[in-house]
Amino acid sequence: MNMASLAWTAPVAGALALLTAYLLASKINRQDPGTPRMREIAAAIHDGAMAFLNREYRTLVYFVLALAAIIVIAGFTTDAMQWQTAIAFVTGAVCSILAGNFGMRVATQANVRTANAAQHGLNKALDIAFSGGAVMGLSVVGLGMLGVGIIYMIFGNPDIVNGFALGASSIALFARVGGGIYTKAADVGADLVGKVEAGIPEDDPRNPAVIADNVGDNVGDVAGMGADLFESYVGATIAAMAIAVVNEDIDPNLAALPLLISAGGIVASIIGTQFVKGKEGANPAKALNMGTYAAGIVTLVIAGLISFLGYGTHIYFTAVVAGLVAGILIGQLTEYYTSGDYGPVKSIADASETGPATNIIAGLGVGMMSTGLPILVIGIATLVAYAVGAGSGQGLFTIALAAVGMLSTTGMTVAVDAYGPIADNAGGIAEMSHLDPKVRKTTDTLDSVGNTTAAIGKGFAIGSAALTALSLFGAFATASGLGNVSMTDPKLIVGLFIGGMLPFLFGAMTMNAVGRAAMQMVEEVRRQFREIKGIMEEKAKPDYARCVEISTGAALKEMVVPGLMAVAAPLAVGWLLGVTALAGLLAGALVTGVMMAIMMANSGGAWDNAKKYIEGGAHGGKGSQPHKAAVVGDTVGDPFKDTSGPSMNILIKLMTIVSLVFAATFGNGLLPL
Amino acid sequence: MNMASLAWTAPVAGALALLTAYLLASKINRQDPGTPRMREIAAAIHDGAMAFLNREYRTLVYFVLALAAIIVIAGFTTDAMQWQTAIAFVTGAVCSILAGNFGMRVATQANVRTANAAQHGLNKALDIAFSGGAVMGLSVVGLGMLGVGIIYMIFGNPDIVNGFALGASSIALFARVGGGIYTKAADVGADLVGKVEAGIPEDDPRNPAVIADNVGDNVGDVAGMGADLFESYVGATIAAMAIAVVNEDIDPNLAALPLLISAGGIVASIIGTQFVKGKEGANPAKALNMGTYAAGIVTLVIAGLISFLGYGTHIYFTAVVAGLVAGILIGQLTEYYTSGDYGPVKSIADASETGPATNIIAGLGVGMMSTGLPILVIGIATLVAYAVGAGSGQGLFTIALAAVGMLSTTGMTVAVDAYGPIADNAGGIAEMSHLDPKVRKTTDTLDSVGNTTAAIGKGFAIGSAALTALSLFGAFATASGLGNVSMTDPKLIVGLFIGGMLPFLFGAMTMNAVGRAAMQMVEEVRRQFREIKGIMEEKAKPDYARCVEISTGAALKEMVVPGLMAVAAPLAVGWLLGVTALAGLLAGALVTGVMMAIMMANSGGAWDNAKKYIEGGAHGGKGSQPHKAAVVGDTVGDPFKDTSGPSMNILIKLMTIVSLVFAATFGNGLLPL
Repeated sequence: MNMASLAWTAPVAGALALLTAYLLASKINRQDPGTPRMREIAAAIHDGAMAFLNREYRTLVYFVLALAAIIVIAGFTTDAMQWQTAIAFVTGAVCSILAGNFGMRVATQANVRTANAAQHGLNKALDIAFSGGAVMGLSVVGLGMLGVGIIYMIFGNPDIVNGFALGASSIALFARVGGGIYTKAADVGADLVGKVEAGIPEDDPRNPAVIADNVGDNVGDVAGMGADLFESYVGATIAAMAIAVVNEDIDPNLAALPLLISAGGIVASIIGTQFVKGKEGANPAKALNMGTYAAGIVTLVIAGLISFLGYGTHIYFTAVVAGLVAGILIGQLTEYYTSGDYGPVKSIADASETGPATNIIAGLGVGMMSTGLPILVIGIATLVAYAVGAGSGQGLFTIALAAVGMLSTTGMTVAVDAYGPIADNAGGIAEMSHLDPKVRKTTDTLDSVGNTTAAIGKGFAIGSAALTALSLFGAFATASGLGNVSMTDPKLIVGLFIGGMLPFLFGAMTMNAVGRAAMQMVEEVRRQFREIKGIMEEKAKPDYARCVEISTGAALKEMVVPGLMAVAAPLAVGWLLGVTALAGLLAGALVTGVMMAIMMANSGGAWDNAKKYIEGGAHGGKGSQPHKAAVVGDTVGDPFKDTSGPSMNILIKLMTIVSLVFAATFGNGLLPL
Repeated sequence: MNMASLAWTAPVAGALALLTAYLLASKINRQDPGTPRMREIAAAIHDGAMAFLNREYRTLVYFVLALAAIIVIAGFTTDAMQWQTAIAFVTGAVCSILAGNFGMRVATQANVRTANAAQHGLNKALDIAFSGGAVMGLSVVGLGMLGVGIIYMIFGNPDIVNGFALGASSIALFARVGGGIYTKAADVGADLVGKVEAGIPEDDPRNPAVIADNVGDNVGDVAGMGADLFESYVGATIAAMAIAVVNEDIDPNLAALPLLISAGGIVASIIGTQFVKGKEGANPAKALNMGTYAAGIVTLVIAGLISFLGYGTHIYFTAVVAGLVAGILIGQLTEYYTSGDYGPVKSIADASETGPATNIIAGLGVGMMSTGLPILVIGIATLVAYAVGAGSGQGLFTIALAAVGMLSTTGMTVAVDAYGPIADNAGGIAEMSHLDPKVRKTTDTLDSVGNTTAAIGKGFAIGSAALTALSLFGAFATASGLGNVSMTDPKLIVGLFIGGMLPFLFGAMTMNAVGRAAMQMVEEVRRQFREIKGIMEEKAKPDYARCVEISTGAALKEMVVPGLMAVAAPLAVGWLLGVTALAGLLAGALVTGVMMAIMMANSGGAWDNAKKYIEGGAHGGKGSQPHKAAVVGDTVGDPFKDTSGPSMNILIKLMTIVSLVFAATFGNGLLPL
């Protein structure tokens, strides 16, 4: 059978995912949204979140149009570049935006219904919250495969399809950075003034930043995360397709293979979501894990069928397995370094005994140390995936397939990831609506389950980012005509240095942005407590909208510079210093970006759980000196794990895809060196 | 004139430096060491410091002998490696040890005499403290050039001379790590319990850790720093020599050129030290700067003479100038990011208003941001130095010469660097001996001047480390027969990842080591306050020796694993995965190592000065909430700037020199890939 003729399965699977998402959304919509008070709060969160997203998209329109124009111009001036790439680019951006918009719209409907259902038991609430997450997950993979599949079937040219990945990456970076700044500014503002200074509990309606904080969970952890994984998913698929085409040793018909595996992953994810059914009295974690495992097993079966029966070889199956195993291992390592059950987090809790400084040192130490084993796993997976295909000259392609395999169950991963903030939001709504404290307990249980399961998702995100960036890099190196290079070529070395520095610069920019935005929020919350009399006695309502406004404005303003840097840096180096320096830049950024991503995510997670571990009663529990020290670590960890760290993965891929799309335009650079 | 025949000038200049150092040491020894109480305290510091150094050396004997044996075995089994390299290796190690030993011996005699002289005025004290620093500086360059020069004249083979650099690097890494752990464990222990818990001032004789703290300044900031710069100095010279020989385009007689420039730098440094004369009423910073500028100008004149007259070309002179200018610029940038006079430190002080968490975020942000411009400066200097020589095929050699130029005035740089801790120690002795508070003020003035001047030295250390590692890398690539490589070779990429991860692992290990050692010290100091009655009333003497013992034991124990990792990692990757993966490893480590070095040094320095800026009266001054937050940042910064950060520079060079020495043994690696 000519497997390439099956490419149509990708958009069909995508459409199927969207249909399922639509049915789930309708089901959610039919649920009771509770009391008028609950509806009012939910509406405030929903409106704030949608308003942010819409303003964000309006800002990005200019960026998308400008970059599209540059692509068109380059397409007309360079034979090796097609202006049609601009169409793919805009389509990728629009699909990403649609996925984020639809997913978050449903998530902000599911939260209040989850809160209401939690009055009637854990399982009903689990079902609604997870359905909300599944809408996001299936929208991401559905629009991803529908878009990539259609663009591929129309143009048939992976060079043009690369534009789709560029669109997805651009939106992802801005959404991650903007959403990350929004959520942390609101979070820190609400915590520092509300909890610490005013002494009111989390999610208290008297806190002016409380709505902004809940909006933040949606724009950061639902929409931002969704755009991130949309990018990973289509990025990995397209990277593998691009390599299949540029590499002369590979049958170009293999370009359809990544589409087939991703299509299979969609089917697997839809099946997986059906396995998430809570049992009365059972731990809901079991239900989530059951869904994840089911999706993984179905993916393996489909990948096996495609590889053995469709192509008559084991190599594609083996590559997919290498990717999946590496993803799981990195997930387990993430769990080890960030869970309160193991040594690293306990060592941070121990260090909190001697104050915040030793807590910080220990947390940074854990994060830095935690780069070691995941890097070895990525290295081994890379060598194995390469070795599988190297004999037939397909080594780079099989590396790319490992990333596709790792990400094939993205639909399920995103569903689990997005379920967390929905449960979290439900708890906030329960609190603010003064529901029975038992409701909050139920939503807290759901929320904490999501945290654990999400660790595996993070492993997949980091591992796949490294492999995808590597594949895109391979495609770039081939497409740009970069032959063998001398490792002592100073252009290469200077490129390496500049590239290695960019993630540090980017990390500094995003952390400082959170700092500045949080500062604004702190001042506003303090002002409201001071100027609006009667807030503390619940006689006057705080001005929630003003806080939402501040977070929105700050996030939109602060996301611009780091976002533009990510696009401009590779173009500037490529055009000025040429393709060798640019290759160095990408390699350097890949290396430090992956390290920083692992370190920041794990330091942040470990600090968070060290605090929770102490709150569980260790070292004197809540309110003790060690607890205060641990709160400092947790606050430092917030921008680490929710803003700067996750953006690193996108940064390295975006810079590579920019280079890949413009590969034909660089040459030896304009500077006479 | 055959310039190569002038190689004898290097050992002669070295001998001259040692003679000058000896004369300065005698002069110091003739000064009055003050009252019996002062002598007793000084003796305790001196004995503790020498005891540590001797035990450290005894530990290192095994390492040196083992590595020498491996070199001999490799030399007998591989034609391309000489067993004589082991002789050079041991000589390099011994010279480094001698320089550290002699310099620190004199420094611990100069401290008490500085304290005594400070009773009679600033200038007399400046003279003695700086003379003490100059002994260290001239010992470093003297033994460096004497050793390199003699080894080169005996064997005439730069392959063998590389062994000398390996010896210097090995000792440097252990000395920096061990000294860094020692000094920070003692410092944190003394501060956390003495200052914070017991509420007694800095350098109070009732603090059991006070002697250990003062010993730490000597073993860390004098001996450790000296070994570090010994390594940089000989490393840069030898890297340039090695390139001159392996590169077939270059006249091998040029191997003597780096020796000539370094010899000229020694003369310049000796002259520079003569310019450091305090004037009554003038700022002593002027005297130090005068000396630094004088040394720089004389170096330029000598380099110009050598280049234009000796070799009849401008290119060597231009390369030296590129290096010097880059070093100065990086120094200025360091100053900008870490001095209380500029925005970055003030922004950290501002962020301290909202507590320790925002202080930490701001400090990390400043450190990460501060990688940007220095990397651009290093990049431009590399391209310029390369462009100068590229036309005649000497591009790599001229890059190496830029590093030699940057480091040629090391004698003067080390003098200024070592002067600081001598003045600091003098203040401690004055305090403990209950001298007039005016004496302490005088020594504080001297100390603070040293801090500012040292910033430029740090710029040179970082810039030269990058260029030297790059040169060594070039020599390795040539010597190992690494031809052009494919940037998508998975071995290269996996090597890049592993190499990029090693500085993170190394940073985690050294930071955790400081944490553990400090914890032990905290417990011991608490125990003494609890069990030895009458300490606080000065009726009973604390057990200083026990604290010295703890710091010594912890530092020696903790330095072993990171030190061995630095030597073992390149050998393991080279032997298992082959020379391409090893090249990747070195490039990856170079990139992240330089970033981490800059970030950690600058974050640490900025936190330190943000605290001092607040202590100067800003944000409520000493004792205010912002001050407490700033103290947290300063404590986190301690292992950053004094242990982990400075070790990074050595780590990347040591791994490269190990690879260079064993270059002939790697081949394609044992694993079948």
